[in-house]
Amino acid sequence: MKQARHPSADEMTLVATMTALSDPIRIGLVRVLSDGRERGWGELRAPVAKSTLSHHLKVLRDAGVTRTRQEGTRCYVVLRRDDLELRFPGLLDAVLAAADDEGVGDRVGLVDAR
Amino acid sequence: MKQARHPSADEMTLVATMTALSDPIRIGLVRVLSDGRERGWGELRAPVAKSTLSHHLKVLRDAGVTRTRQEGTRCYVVLRRDDLELRFPGLLDAVLAAADDEGVGDRVGLVDAR
Repeated sequence: MKQARHPSADEMTLVATMTALSDPIRIGLVRVLSDGRERGWGELRAPVAKSTLSHHLKVLRDAGVTRTRQEGTRCYVVLRRDDLELRFPGLLDAVLAAADDEGVGDRVGLVDAR
Repeated sequence: MKQARHPSADEMTLVATMTALSDPIRIGLVRVLSDGRERGWGELRAPVAKSTLSHHLKVLRDAGVTRTRQEGTRCYVVLRRDDLELRFPGLLDAVLAAADDEGVGDRVGLVDAR
């Protein structure tokens, strides 16, 4: 975690990005993060085990979709919207619009979203 | 093949479409078909076994990305660009632009593209 590898925008690949964005939980996480705010992993709510959530966050990070940082014992994640837009113009917005329309990842949210 | 099931535009799902478009061979096939022309399967050239190519064409068809028809003993395939645009506005163009830029699926082409 401390040495988490993040691809630069140049290193991102279309196939890894499309793969990262082809799972409902990961799409849900991206939707939650689409407001641009950094979130602690503990704030994220998803209908999967913590280990599975951690795996999904790693897939998103490794593809370059998100950036993760550790502060003490806590991990935080933020969407790399600008890098995605630079590398794959229009892709993220198209996916977010379709996901909103279809309700993909609706069961992913924030713990205290009251 | 004769009874090939094609989802309607309404039945297409984001996850199936993203999955279909997350493989370099399938992206290459979509690029070849992006000129809108229907192609015989025999015209398609890809660096994989025929059975693998057939599988990729089935994944594209089942997701709704392409439409396949059989005429006698030959199969033909065409990109469902309008249905994709209707269901997922901007997605196909974003993927095609990124694939062109990155050269994804460059080894897929037409047999007689001389």
